[in-house]
Amino acid sequence: MAVVIKPAAAWMSEFVAIATPPTAARDRAAQALCDTVGVMLAGAVEPAAMIARSAFDSGANNTCRILGRPERAGAGDAALANGVAAHALDYDDMCFVSLAHPSCALVPAVLAAGELVGASGRSVLDGYVVGFEIECRLGAVMNPRHYHERGWHCTSSIGTVGAAAAASRVLGLDGSATAHAIGIAASAACGLKENIGAMVKPLHAGLAARNGIMAARLAQAGFTASERAIDGPQGYLAAMDSQQPPSALAEAIGDLGSRWEILDTGITVKLYPSCAATHPPLDILLELVRRHRIADDDILAIDVEVDSMTPRLLIHECPATGLEAKFSMPFCAAAAAVFGPPGVDTFDVSHIRDSRVQRLMPLVTLRANATFDDAQPLSQACVSVRLRDGRTVSARVDGARGYPGRLTDEELHAKFLACAQRSLDQRAATAALAAVRAIERADDIRSITSAFTPERDANQLLSKHP
Amino acid sequence: MAVVIKPAAAWMSEFVAIATPPTAARDRAAQALCDTVGVMLAGAVEPAAMIARSAFDSGANNTCRILGRPERAGAGDAALANGVAAHALDYDDMCFVSLAHPSCALVPAVLAAGELVGASGRSVLDGYVVGFEIECRLGAVMNPRHYHERGWHCTSSIGTVGAAAAASRVLGLDGSATAHAIGIAASAACGLKENIGAMVKPLHAGLAARNGIMAARLAQAGFTASERAIDGPQGYLAAMDSQQPPSALAEAIGDLGSRWEILDTGITVKLYPSCAATHPPLDILLELVRRHRIADDDILAIDVEVDSMTPRLLIHECPATGLEAKFSMPFCAAAAAVFGPPGVDTFDVSHIRDSRVQRLMPLVTLRANATFDDAQPLSQACVSVRLRDGRTVSARVDGARGYPGRLTDEELHAKFLACAQRSLDQRAATAALAAVRAIERADDIRSITSAFTPERDANQLLSKHP
Repeated sequence: MAVVIKPAAAWMSEFVAIATPPTAARDRAAQALCDTVGVMLAGAVEPAAMIARSAFDSGANNTCRILGRPERAGAGDAALANGVAAHALDYDDMCFVSLAHPSCALVPAVLAAGELVGASGRSVLDGYVVGFEIECRLGAVMNPRHYHERGWHCTSSIGTVGAAAAASRVLGLDGSATAHAIGIAASAACGLKENIGAMVKPLHAGLAARNGIMAARLAQAGFTASERAIDGPQGYLAAMDSQQPPSALAEAIGDLGSRWEILDTGITVKLYPSCAATHPPLDILLELVRRHRIADDDILAIDVEVDSMTPRLLIHECPATGLEAKFSMPFCAAAAAVFGPPGVDTFDVSHIRDSRVQRLMPLVTLRANATFDDAQPLSQACVSVRLRDGRTVSARVDGARGYPGRLTDEELHAKFLACAQRSLDQRAATAALAAVRAIERADDIRSITSAFTPERDANQLLSKHP
Repeated sequence: MAVVIKPAAAWMSEFVAIATPPTAARDRAAQALCDTVGVMLAGAVEPAAMIARSAFDSGANNTCRILGRPERAGAGDAALANGVAAHALDYDDMCFVSLAHPSCALVPAVLAAGELVGASGRSVLDGYVVGFEIECRLGAVMNPRHYHERGWHCTSSIGTVGAAAAASRVLGLDGSATAHAIGIAASAACGLKENIGAMVKPLHAGLAARNGIMAARLAQAGFTASERAIDGPQGYLAAMDSQQPPSALAEAIGDLGSRWEILDTGITVKLYPSCAATHPPLDILLELVRRHRIADDDILAIDVEVDSMTPRLLIHECPATGLEAKFSMPFCAAAAAVFGPPGVDTFDVSHIRDSRVQRLMPLVTLRANATFDDAQPLSQACVSVRLRDGRTVSARVDGARGYPGRLTDEELHAKFLACAQRSLDQRAATAALAAVRAIERADDIRSITSAFTPERDANQLLSKHP
């Protein structure tokens, strides 16, 4: 047996990059190419091929906005770009039922679909909601095996079907076409957890959004899928290794429309762009610092007590990169004590190297308290801060401020403005916030999305799209 | 428990199409949208988002041809369109190792990649070959469980990785970038067997081609994947339920470059657009008809003896649609006796209703002969024809004429011309054949692909692309 220590992808790719196929192999390829061009030319007039083409955007039809950018793109490309952007910082929201980041796939899909048809803001929101509900029913049945054991990244594997449902709703498909859209999306669902930590992770969100809207548009144009694509013996649940059998999904979808998961368990918003497990401790630490007016050089020790799951997520004691720092309790606690509430820029490598942060990081301890495990995961935390003046101040919390039902409008809007100013100037960011807050009253979503484009480039945009 | 008899997709889609979310749900959606637009605007300046955008085609950069059509598209859309067209008739070639239809994903990917960079014909063919080899190593390790038990459609699930490898080679990526392309493609791999028989089946080919070239272009632009995306604990082999563990792939890829599967087991070309299992019997039946000058009304019975796998594929005794007719030995045999070698038009419903075909179909019997099972599947067949004049003529065959190493250039070219004339006029089809036969000598593949566009629309094309 060959002894291979390199990853398979590296092994294969070296072959791909440098192999010189023998002439006979190339001859076979030429035959295959000849044969395939022939059947392509034959198939080009088949309904499947004609419909697939009709669902494209031509160059002149680039109606969908890439947020923060002057250029527009076709719906699929715009959904992909916006999905990648939404998940690029791991700062987007979460759902504890689907185990997906729901909005990074759903929002790009409903925005692009809405822009295609000039949908109302209400229609766009309805699309979001039904997509979210579908994802929760699938996730409740498929997880944990689908996610934890088989290694599918729910943000994409379940998000694709959710995005297709959401886009179908916004495009106004009837039940039959929507069923085909869901069946098409099931066949496009993908996303490996092994790629978490790589750029492919945000790509998963983009793929889900793009494939979701593709599925909806294909179904709208008459493309058909198996009616058993989800629950048939060789369907989505089977291939994606669902925890429970199709009969469980039949039961789970029985309460669609009568019970709203978006209300019952809701959406968890991240107020810091770090691992969700850091959020309850950060909330109390920041509160202690504020209440007791603690300066970072007053601190002798920070003890963080959490549930048993948290230390398995926060694995970096001495982070070297910004991505590792997002999964480091010592860094997050030290940075919060020094700089205040963590934002996107907090995770710049320069802040890891900051001398005050470097002094504090070794003073942070993270301990699991098994009695916290009875509550919801990643919710219980106790933080004690020992001070130079001899005092020890401490507090306990159940869940973070961004958890469902707790978030204030002020917190949401402050996050929005801070985020938006990475792509827009302050005035444009403020206008974007006003636009997004007015979404329910918008007759045409494009009156909203136009505010997500940088003002400076507006003239360039006009000259490109006269 | 709810009693649900409808398919899950239909159940869910009705909800999607008609549900009216409560106001509180819509409020949550508006919050999610607000939050997500914010993080999109923040993420839009992240490397992942910038690279993803840079790999798009802008409207002005639609350089890739959709075969048989005057319009061009971006590389991804062209690959999707050509992939769907290539597999739309189930007339494209097969590989008994990857259990994929290889060319319907590989050829669109290498053509689009080749057109992007003006690659030589030889480079395009080399891309095909390395993609094919990668698919075979993956297929040998992953099947049969991946395909038969878990229900993945290898044409897409394995074809995506093959297409990425092929496109990477044509684009000239180095080993490191190719490894990222393979890792990205692994996360985009998809395709459910449950959708076989629906339009989604050819879409799988298009998705594989599109996602393959997308992965290569993203990697070229600097997008990164996990180096263990294929063989890591939560990677492609694990998620896709490989029959054998990653160590088996390490062994299988050890002979890459020293052994060429494309030469050893080769590519099976379909000479009839029906299930491959009908091909050995059709070959001998047509030979008997020719040798003994049998008219269809001379025939009293046609007995077809095959291996045990064939009857499990040819399940339609009385087909109602053209698609069912492709999986019907009675129809294929009757049609061959009446009309000669089956072509695309043979499977028009009008031919199922033809009175001579209707007379013959009940006279065809299909029997399994277990002694045939020792040979390669779908290769052994014996056909006996009982005639009105008292004679019975029979013959036996091992494999079909389109099987690897047997196909003549004449057969290949005749098939090409018949296929091409569904999209091109006769003169253009002949020119297309001449072009495709000259591929190895082409300095720029675009000099070849220009011949795959209908002549009549050439002027329109010029005016669109001055």
